[in-house]
Amino acid sequence: MNNAIGYAALDPNTPLAPYSFTRRAVGLNDVKIEILYCGVCHSDLHTVRNEWNNTLYPSVPGHEIVGRVTAVGDAVKAFNVGDLAGVGCMIDSCQNCPSCGEGLEQYCENGFIGTYNGHAFGGSENTFGGYSDHIVVNEKFALRISHAEGDLAAVAPLLCAGITTYSPLREWKVGPGQKVGVVGLGGLGHMAVKIARAMGAHVVLFTTSPGKKEDALRLGASEVVVSKNKEEMAAHLNSFDFILNTVAAPHDLDAFLSLLKRDATMTLVGAPETPHPSPSVFNLIFKRRRLAGSLIGGIAETQEMLDFCAEHDIVSDIEMIDIQDINEAFERMLKSDVKYRFVIDMASLKSA
Amino acid sequence: MNNAIGYAALDPNTPLAPYSFTRRAVGLNDVKIEILYCGVCHSDLHTVRNEWNNTLYPSVPGHEIVGRVTAVGDAVKAFNVGDLAGVGCMIDSCQNCPSCGEGLEQYCENGFIGTYNGHAFGGSENTFGGYSDHIVVNEKFALRISHAEGDLAAVAPLLCAGITTYSPLREWKVGPGQKVGVVGLGGLGHMAVKIARAMGAHVVLFTTSPGKKEDALRLGASEVVVSKNKEEMAAHLNSFDFILNTVAAPHDLDAFLSLLKRDATMTLVGAPETPHPSPSVFNLIFKRRRLAGSLIGGIAETQEMLDFCAEHDIVSDIEMIDIQDINEAFERMLKSDVKYRFVIDMASLKSA
Repeated sequence: MNNAIGYAALDPNTPLAPYSFTRRAVGLNDVKIEILYCGVCHSDLHTVRNEWNNTLYPSVPGHEIVGRVTAVGDAVKAFNVGDLAGVGCMIDSCQNCPSCGEGLEQYCENGFIGTYNGHAFGGSENTFGGYSDHIVVNEKFALRISHAEGDLAAVAPLLCAGITTYSPLREWKVGPGQKVGVVGLGGLGHMAVKIARAMGAHVVLFTTSPGKKEDALRLGASEVVVSKNKEEMAAHLNSFDFILNTVAAPHDLDAFLSLLKRDATMTLVGAPETPHPSPSVFNLIFKRRRLAGSLIGGIAETQEMLDFCAEHDIVSDIEMIDIQDINEAFERMLKSDVKYRFVIDMASLKSA
Repeated sequence: MNNAIGYAALDPNTPLAPYSFTRRAVGLNDVKIEILYCGVCHSDLHTVRNEWNNTLYPSVPGHEIVGRVTAVGDAVKAFNVGDLAGVGCMIDSCQNCPSCGEGLEQYCENGFIGTYNGHAFGGSENTFGGYSDHIVVNEKFALRISHAEGDLAAVAPLLCAGITTYSPLREWKVGPGQKVGVVGLGGLGHMAVKIARAMGAHVVLFTTSPGKKEDALRLGASEVVVSKNKEEMAAHLNSFDFILNTVAAPHDLDAFLSLLKRDATMTLVGAPETPHPSPSVFNLIFKRRRLAGSLIGGIAETQEMLDFCAEHDIVSDIEMIDIQDINEAFERMLKSDVKYRFVIDMASLKSA
């Protein structure tokens, strides 16, 4: 066993605070990673506050992890001590079901094991995430990082926000010559704009905030539409090859579905706490349109995404914080007061 | 001009009654069809009662038309006098847009012209449907019928109920080795069961009526599930390659979406007057499932469907009525008291 330190919530109502725990010893196929940076995802907040009613306490969140390998098991092939490495939303899956067989561990028929708040198979053990000094993980669930070392903090959010947007853009075959919509300019949306642009698409960013126009264009959007403006919206009727909807707050899906071409898809990656207004069936029927959902991405695709982003000089736009500022960062995140992802500098943990 | 007789609604509140009108003279590319039988679709009722708020009066409904060619224009190539022929939901489209170019006239970007209640392009002219003695139509929108002549009445419903179910089954590539669900056993559902079975799929019929089990098995279902029975439903979780949902009444879509495999689609062909309860986004996200809609089918595909049905001995299960019984038939249709489609014997029109 290895002693570890991190920040944990002990119950839904108290702030995150320093916490000591143990990690397993480095097994044959494990890598031990010293965590240098960890992104702050909205799921972290949902979990520590038990907003999905499934939280195991103590809860150490964080699944946008980057760091340096400090030990490897004897059977490890892909990593050496000193390498940079990342860990995303999963640290294990059954490896036996059809989805795992296809490299789609996120859809593991037996349920993948989350990097935090994850039950080990058949057991009641909790998993502890990246708001901590190190992690031990099977090398199959560790990612290689080929970005420059100076970009490392801004790479962290790729492990969740990046793959969550990259995977559906690939699944629905976004590419040159296509008109692609991205709904919402937050942590997910800003990654979607960058990645869809790099894939060669003409990207239209939809936002309710006119103030985000300039920033969206800077990030790679070719056009920005204020979705509250009916005339702006009407100009885009029946014209999109694909729309990626990153907004988790309940909203009118029909306003966007009606912008799709015949046979085109809008994919949701945000799950609202209360339902969206029910989408119009006529809107689907009269153009044979499709509404879909998508969940993060498999390990192989996450590696592909990291390599793609390195090749295209894509990282997240981040604001760095110390771990001591995490509770305040949560409050600011609730007000969307972040451009566009908080990343914790884990060196600050040592001064805790 | 040709004098025609039929049955029309003059306003939303009075029954259908005999009505005389004129059809255009047979043009160069037209065929004139003596209507022998016409199926009764729920859309007919919606239209004559103006339930979609778009009815032009007088309204002569009917878009499941079969009959015999009695005259052809000089340029007509595909039909001769004496041939059997059919007309479905459309009698024209722009022929210039991408959808028309792909043979998907039902998605014509300029709007197809309905067989009834259809505005001619740029005009205010009404179109009159198949509750009448004859119709004149461009041969491009007439279908060849290769069923035996004795089956003709039961072929009529293929022109709407048949193609509405055949088209999505083809679009989503239903075939041998697949498990396919059909929701609802009415005019559409009973066609879907027959066609999906003929395509080689393992068909599971979902109904709220235990009394329909035997009939569903007779029609070709391999299994019947009473959708109100939670245990029966749970046994099919995550197991369907495709589900065709023919139910127009608002209902819980999640109960069926959760039965789809990863990446599978449920397609809606019924449009409720009030919305379905909003489907769960989690249900879509966690298996990358898709919810879609589909509208009738193009002319080429309608011909393909008719040929497929002739080859596989598929017709509709019908109850024949006289035109004088149409108002009573509407009332029975509202109570689902029909197995599974009313077809009007148009010979009765002459005794009107």
